[in-house]
Amino acid sequence: MTPLPRPPDVVRSAYAQLVVTDLPKARWFWVDMLGFHVQYEAADSLYLRGTDELTHHSLVLRQGGIAALDHISYRLRAPEDVDRAEDYFRALGCPVLRVPRGEGTHGVGDAVRVVDPLGFPVEFFHEIDRAERLIQRYDLRRGAEIARLDHFNICTPDIPAAYAHYKALGFGCSETIEGDEHELYAAWMYRKQTVHDVAFTGGAGPRLHHLGVATHESHQVLRTADLFGSVRKEHHIERGPGRHGVSNAFYLYLRDPDGHRVEIYTSDYYTGDPDHETYRWNVHDDRRRDFWGNAVIESWYKEATPVLGLDGNSQPVTDTILDESAVQVGADGLG
Amino acid sequence: MTPLPRPPDVVRSAYAQLVVTDLPKARWFWVDMLGFHVQYEAADSLYLRGTDELTHHSLVLRQGGIAALDHISYRLRAPEDVDRAEDYFRALGCPVLRVPRGEGTHGVGDAVRVVDPLGFPVEFFHEIDRAERLIQRYDLRRGAEIARLDHFNICTPDIPAAYAHYKALGFGCSETIEGDEHELYAAWMYRKQTVHDVAFTGGAGPRLHHLGVATHESHQVLRTADLFGSVRKEHHIERGPGRHGVSNAFYLYLRDPDGHRVEIYTSDYYTGDPDHETYRWNVHDDRRRDFWGNAVIESWYKEATPVLGLDGNSQPVTDTILDESAVQVGADGLG
Amino acid sequence: MTPLPRPPDVVRSAYAQLVVTDLPKARWFWVDMLGFHVQYEAADSLYLRGTDELTHHSLVLRQGGIAALDHISYRLRAPEDVDRAEDYFRALGCPVLRVPRGEGTHGVGDAVRVVDPLGFPVEFFHEIDRAERLIQRYDLRRGAEIARLDHFNICTPDIPAAYAHYKALGFGCSETIEGDEHELYAAWMYRKQTVHDVAFTGGAGPRLHHLGVATHESHQVLRTADLFGSVRKEHHIERGPGRHGVSNAFYLYLRDPDGHRVEIYTSDYYTGDPDHETYRWNVHDDRRRDFWGNAVIESWYKEATPVLGLDGNSQPVTDTILDESAVQVGADGLG
Amino acid sequence: MTPLPRPPDVVRSAYAQLVVTDLPKARWFWVDMLGFHVQYEAADSLYLRGTDELTHHSLVLRQGGIAALDHISYRLRAPEDVDRAEDYFRALGCPVLRVPRGEGTHGVGDAVRVVDPLGFPVEFFHEIDRAERLIQRYDLRRGAEIARLDHFNICTPDIPAAYAHYKALGFGCSETIEGDEHELYAAWMYRKQTVHDVAFTGGAGPRLHHLGVATHESHQVLRTADLFGSVRKEHHIERGPGRHGVSNAFYLYLRDPDGHRVEIYTSDYYTGDPDHETYRWNVHDDRRRDFWGNAVIESWYKEATPVLGLDGNSQPVTDTILDESAVQVGADGLG
Repeated sequence: MTPLPRPPDVVRSAYAQLVVTDLPKARWFWVDMLGFHVQYEAADSLYLRGTDELTHHSLVLRQGGIAALDHISYRLRAPEDVDRAEDYFRALGCPVLRVPRGEGTHGVGDAVRVVDPLGFPVEFFHEIDRAERLIQRYDLRRGAEIARLDHFNICTPDIPAAYAHYKALGFGCSETIEGDEHELYAAWMYRKQTVHDVAFTGGAGPRLHHLGVATHESHQVLRTADLFGSVRKEHHIERGPGRHGVSNAFYLYLRDPDGHRVEIYTSDYYTGDPDHETYRWNVHDDRRRDFWGNAVIESWYKEATPVLGLDGNSQPVTDTILDESAVQVGADGLG
Repeated sequence: MTPLPRPPDVVRSAYAQLVVTDLPKARWFWVDMLGFHVQYEAADSLYLRGTDELTHHSLVLRQGGIAALDHISYRLRAPEDVDRAEDYFRALGCPVLRVPRGEGTHGVGDAVRVVDPLGFPVEFFHEIDRAERLIQRYDLRRGAEIARLDHFNICTPDIPAAYAHYKALGFGCSETIEGDEHELYAAWMYRKQTVHDVAFTGGAGPRLHHLGVATHESHQVLRTADLFGSVRKEHHIERGPGRHGVSNAFYLYLRDPDGHRVEIYTSDYYTGDPDHETYRWNVHDDRRRDFWGNAVIESWYKEATPVLGLDGNSQPVTDTILDESAVQVGADGLG
Repeated sequence: MTPLPRPPDVVRSAYAQLVVTDLPKARWFWVDMLGFHVQYEAADSLYLRGTDELTHHSLVLRQGGIAALDHISYRLRAPEDVDRAEDYFRALGCPVLRVPRGEGTHGVGDAVRVVDPLGFPVEFFHEIDRAERLIQRYDLRRGAEIARLDHFNICTPDIPAAYAHYKALGFGCSETIEGDEHELYAAWMYRKQTVHDVAFTGGAGPRLHHLGVATHESHQVLRTADLFGSVRKEHHIERGPGRHGVSNAFYLYLRDPDGHRVEIYTSDYYTGDPDHETYRWNVHDDRRRDFWGNAVIESWYKEATPVLGLDGNSQPVTDTILDESAVQVGADGLG
Repeated sequence: MTPLPRPPDVVRSAYAQLVVTDLPKARWFWVDMLGFHVQYEAADSLYLRGTDELTHHSLVLRQGGIAALDHISYRLRAPEDVDRAEDYFRALGCPVLRVPRGEGTHGVGDAVRVVDPLGFPVEFFHEIDRAERLIQRYDLRRGAEIARLDHFNICTPDIPAAYAHYKALGFGCSETIEGDEHELYAAWMYRKQTVHDVAFTGGAGPRLHHLGVATHESHQVLRTADLFGSVRKEHHIERGPGRHGVSNAFYLYLRDPDGHRVEIYTSDYYTGDPDHETYRWNVHDDRRRDFWGNAVIESWYKEATPVLGLDGNSQPVTDTILDESAVQVGADGLG
């Protein structure tokens, strides 16, 4: 077997493009309620970012016929990494599309889009427009006061395959959920020095489980939930607020008007040391998903966003083999 | 019918005496984890208070054979109010016991104990020993950093009767939960200038639903939950953290080693104006119990602490007529 | 000497009316930055309240030629207390003006205005219009998210006289600052069950030192300071954020565009027990004004707002006898 | 001129070793009050770490005759980087000492110690013992609840030289303070993906200005100040709490019993993108050192910790050329 070429040097999870079916409603949710800043606006799309982000966007909302993930996107260290990404995924036998600046996402330079071995539409780029510094514009903060995109969480039926793919791409693994025989139920993997840029939730896939977006402190997470209650939109709150066992982050899961899930996430930990060790949770520890032992609601395990292929059609979905939600563990068991 | 004598002038909910079956375990929960300060200790009992309390205790834990509420206790404005309490409850035909200083609870002066018309063991007193000021002893704070007792919440099958009894005692009503025909499911009543000193939860009664204890800020409530997770005692967490619709307080419900329920409670509002109006929640508003629409766990509606009579025996329990937990309202419905 | 008539039953500090010289600038400060809600607006005045307040206003800003305090105002328990107030201050020999509903402040009923023995313009009323409940309208919160007026702080040269006057009016005393011979440098006095409705700062008077307005938690105080920095208006921040020794509250002092001082204040303690004891600070304890020992800036001791008489003219000012700011105490001494 | 060899790949600021003159007093400050965890204890030294740190220590306190900095220490990416560090500093003509495992600091492997061109004692190592994960041991948290070392801040008279040295070592520059002609007053430089691992304060040097240690949220910083007040040790608080302009972090500066300065620091921002731009503050912007415009106390500019050479003797100090504290800027000017 020919060895794979050197993979591209991924810096971090950079942005996601979601297809939404009602852009004004999506705007209400992401801009008015979560406090994303509108960086750029086109007829059928919104380009959004958090207050700490210095690049053009971390979220694109595109009007379309069915709610879906158009693609997730990783930033690469150098321009030549885009070529490396192309070579790497071609060598893997994946569908690959080169997208020159001006033909792809507004603000993003030369890029490669692939359907990765897990079936996900993934973009890799280096160049992206800079954006005005809003870090200290407290006067512009609204709602959840989102600081930045933190991670993607994806549903895939074969967690070991997802782990192996991202490991080969140079990702470290901060935490896992494992069975008694070390069978892998979930994994959290990173390039930037946080707990993750991407995580895998066992389930029918490829589907997007959620986007994780960061705030600075936990009181901003509580405020977000209070805001939804105050306008009688509390049904957008799906799970939490709570403390994760995995990552130790404080969290809140919301569903946008199309059902896309977003996690408001704060206060995980540094993972940048070269020998950072994986922390392994047993699937029977009922603190793994909620450190306080609160039950995980069934929709959180079962529902997710379909993903598109390079042709813009929904990718077919395969069922899971190993079902974490079927494990009977205290309040958490949904069997 | 003879008119009732003038009722005693109640200042506030003052303390509760709980019977616990394992005092060292109870001490771990209330002192080590919740951070109550041990003011006085006898062979079979602990006298505890929060850091903002300037009187001798707000909680007495007494070792006994079965977990129960021995009594709740209200402070009265003046020494002569103790006589008024005696006269008032005798006129109501309730069992009444006068307890002179030295024969009752340590630190408490002349008192009257009654079984009130709702079947609850209730003490009324004026005199109580002062205690050293700990308000600014941040160095002594531990765990939940409880500042003070806030309220009693009691289960009673007949909410209108409970409302009428406390109204006659001079309590104001800050909030209620009502059906479409204004049938009363729950009520929050106060003497001090907060949302409540006592609240009624519909259910088999007389039983104690919970003690509410106050912290200054919401991050202390989150810390409490984190602490229980960190020592693998997360099963003591029953419900929350969350935001109440009623009272707008941020809350966390815990169960002590005997199953006694305590609410960590913070950030309600001022009710001291003479014409403060009752705010009425409809039982179908799924924000009433949790402003974020999160479901109320069934045990929270169904389980409670039995109460003792003046003879120290458990009071018989009557089933409820109107069952809030059976109302089908979004996530909250448990039918 | 004829004994004084029974004083009126004061419920709480209710509102202040400030004269501002530029109403749009004042609106920017109090509404846009501090988050007061505009309840009513006239050509030359704004009626404002905090989100937890259920009465018409707690602050009136009136356009005028010189920055001044028009009056502070206390709510009384019953309609007949207005007559009692009139009789009481007439017996004291003070200038008294009866202001029937419709002739005084919008939203306020029958009132009495006096120049009290300390030279301050003070109103007493019972009736006030109700206002829509905003307690849970998190969507309307802005800026400092002010919940309610907490207290008035007034400069007066004779603290013992101020203490005696308010004591006679039925106020309790929660805390004092005293010299080695118990000479009184400052006192905090209350009717509602908090640390104070009014406090006295030694200094030339009568002048208004500041209005104290409450938020729920300390992170809201920090946000306020951040907001002023973010719009390059940090010079409105005069002192803090910090922790008071007296009251244990977390605080921030700001100056409005006219120099009127406001304190953002949170997290003091309950004082409602009938025998609540005064806590006495020694003037040499450098934690009394800032529990962290940070220096008090000189302007805070020296500058204050002039007050108007019943005729609308500025009241003459008398210099102080006992000067706390001259006491040499660590970082705090300004001598 | 021979080109310099390739510099070592620095991962992050790793630990500091301070000489303290009274180890029990230092333990009170760092362990009891700040909440550092004692990882290892020898007769004359303590090895401490924060709760999020997974390596052996981030602070060593060593008993000695005079209060000083023994050395700061950076972790390197790979074992061979230790050789690179040796070669690099030898080529620079600096004093260099190779310290094999077992002969240097407990828990640290093969290391190189140098006196860098700025006169500072600096260690470079790769290997360090792992330590038990305490990230979720909320039950062990105390005091300031320090999570990890964040940065070193050093006083040096020649900021451009310091900048050039660290730039050559591969550090990025997140922020600066500059004069009108772009003369450099201060700079913040990083290897890990935060605002800094090291910063330079203009002043007589080489001296250690402070160690920066991180907490998760701002309420932990407030708690720290409250704790010092509560035990009447408020004089250990030198400056703050406040919000920095530079870094946007929330801060508190304390002095330990020997006068060593520590900053409690929280909530800066991500700097890991390859083209992260330097943000430049003008020295006349009075928000640069405190975003709220509060004055910087003179001791903060003038006092610092002497540093030792490789022989254990104090390094001589050179006076500064450019004095930021002499710049007249609002409240901040100390001229």
